[in-house]
Amino acid sequence: MKINYKDEISYLKSVFGKVGFSKENSQLLSKTLTDADLRGISSHGIQRLKWYLSLVKEETIKPKNKFKIIKESQNSLLIDANGNMGQIACDNAMNKLIDKAKKFTISMAVIKNSNHFGTAGYWSRKASQKGLIGISMTNTRPLVVPINAFDAFLGSNAFSFTFPAKPHPFVFDGATSVVAGGKIQVHDKKGEQLPGEWVVDKNRNVVKDPKEAEESLYNAALTEKQKGGGLLTLGGISENNSNYKGFGNSIIVELLTGILAQGSISADTNKGKHDFSQFLMVIDPSFFGNLDVLSNNASDMFNRLRRLKHLSGKKIIVPGDREYKFYDDNLKNGVSIDNVTLKQMEDISKTFNVNMPDIFS
Amino acid sequence: MKINYKDEISYLKSVFGKVGFSKENSQLLSKTLTDADLRGISSHGIQRLKWYLSLVKEETIKPKNKFKIIKESQNSLLIDANGNMGQIACDNAMNKLIDKAKKFTISMAVIKNSNHFGTAGYWSRKASQKGLIGISMTNTRPLVVPINAFDAFLGSNAFSFTFPAKPHPFVFDGATSVVAGGKIQVHDKKGEQLPGEWVVDKNRNVVKDPKEAEESLYNAALTEKQKGGGLLTLGGISENNSNYKGFGNSIIVELLTGILAQGSISADTNKGKHDFSQFLMVIDPSFFGNLDVLSNNASDMFNRLRRLKHLSGKKIIVPGDREYKFYDDNLKNGVSIDNVTLKQMEDISKTFNVNMPDIFS
Repeated sequence: MKINYKDEISYLKSVFGKVGFSKENSQLLSKTLTDADLRGISSHGIQRLKWYLSLVKEETIKPKNKFKIIKESQNSLLIDANGNMGQIACDNAMNKLIDKAKKFTISMAVIKNSNHFGTAGYWSRKASQKGLIGISMTNTRPLVVPINAFDAFLGSNAFSFTFPAKPHPFVFDGATSVVAGGKIQVHDKKGEQLPGEWVVDKNRNVVKDPKEAEESLYNAALTEKQKGGGLLTLGGISENNSNYKGFGNSIIVELLTGILAQGSISADTNKGKHDFSQFLMVIDPSFFGNLDVLSNNASDMFNRLRRLKHLSGKKIIVPGDREYKFYDDNLKNGVSIDNVTLKQMEDISKTFNVNMPDIFS
Repeated sequence: MKINYKDEISYLKSVFGKVGFSKENSQLLSKTLTDADLRGISSHGIQRLKWYLSLVKEETIKPKNKFKIIKESQNSLLIDANGNMGQIACDNAMNKLIDKAKKFTISMAVIKNSNHFGTAGYWSRKASQKGLIGISMTNTRPLVVPINAFDAFLGSNAFSFTFPAKPHPFVFDGATSVVAGGKIQVHDKKGEQLPGEWVVDKNRNVVKDPKEAEESLYNAALTEKQKGGGLLTLGGISENNSNYKGFGNSIIVELLTGILAQGSISADTNKGKHDFSQFLMVIDPSFFGNLDVLSNNASDMFNRLRRLKHLSGKKIIVPGDREYKFYDDNLKNGVSIDNVTLKQMEDISKTFNVNMPDIFS
């Protein structure tokens, strides 16, 4: 099942407008969700709508609130998202950071009292569109079980880094955990066992059944007292494959988000305010050399990587390659929507009296 | 076998002096190597001396060269290490970055035409000693085989991040590959099989025999045309455990070092100039809040992590814990030296007419 991306944007705009977001903010939110679907990151696309609406209903998300700039300097910003969607504060923040980096080479922002912000890559890519290096991070609900532990404590703590290149920027964009929660849902929908060391149960045994895994993650993210189990850190179940490195990566994101913001750390976002925190940074590489030269050198390195001798039937995919290919394809051919999401869209359509987009196969 | 750390510093100072380093630089180099041994990171301690001396002999390292500041702004530095040891340019760079960050919140440096710089953590920890966040990275010889590939291309590309905390800072310090090359040597010395997905051979099969693994790495790092095989990216042998994330991490370090410096990328450091490149950054967290509050909140989070329910017989070790414990112990009880290293020290002692330090058990 597919929909045209323009129809997706329209549908989302209408729904967001109905629940109290301004026209401008509705447009922004719709763009970020549709952008994720266009890039094949469906877990952060229209699939998120139902969750967003439930958070609006329980007033964790406050659609009418305006963000506030608490502190600003030449290089740095501390912003209070004031309980509205992360996208709104981050869009404004990134625009300012891009200006600041052009003048002063490096800039950064911490956003507090925030919510989900779509994909981390959307924000870092704003920088690369201007020939700049972009970095973005967020903490999340508690989902990730630390090394040797049983209960979730850290977030899936997304991290994104972009670097100018051709034909498209280098875009690293993903959870710092071994996988993002969304991957479990994908396997569940396909009825497939989980193929790696992704999730553990309350006894720290690896879980292969996607439904059992999803329940673990649901409980970890939403019940105040951990029942045990959750995602593993990158590196998997044991120190033999360096899960302590993934553990370190997750903590780094937590320090730059929850700790710098003096907000909730991921462990505590399943209670109280449910506030997320974000970190953004922009670097102007042209301080170090001509942008075209640096970009071309990076592109050459990526081409050498792609062309290395490799396993037959496999490819060496540089971070960003897949998503840009999906983007081009899906722009033309439509964005994929699965049955579960379609049903959610229909329910939302009825609830808010919004027209369904055209669906085609 | 142990030596007192002060004797280690003296011995190293004498040797470095004999091969042409200034008194000041000899002191610095000795401190950084001894610091690694004190922290139990023996692969970056006196074990490196033989290699450093061979690089001096072949004039890859130029002990008398002075670094040059190519470009400097309020926040940023581009430095030419001019073929001398990485420690020399980085020590000066970090001193400047600490000053700049205190005034302007963020600062960064790229160092080109450099060499090994000891542990990445030494540099990031300079920042945390002043209540600042430190980040340091280096590229390396080609050691790491990309996803689905057969030949080494990326470096082990060390990354370090520190954050103020008590009783000691958070210190993440390690290779972005699944393990550092040094871990293979440790298993070789103990005569133990490699316990994880660490190294592949030229057919991308996992290698468990440490001697075979060491030979792979030696060839990857030193022979101009890759023979195949090397370290795996974090995440291991397949995409099922997200080795593409580790691949992305390795590339990020390469972009901020080799590419920004317009130096050799790791793939090419086994030929020509053998120049390494480094990236340093310092952030003043006090822009975002009172330093003691932020540091205490971070420390609280680390304590909660350490105290989580965990596997019996295991611990939840926060990055930095081990190394600070080793430091305290080894300062008092002496630094461990294995037989191979002892023999190397004796040979060097004879060659350069330098007294051996006292050895005790």
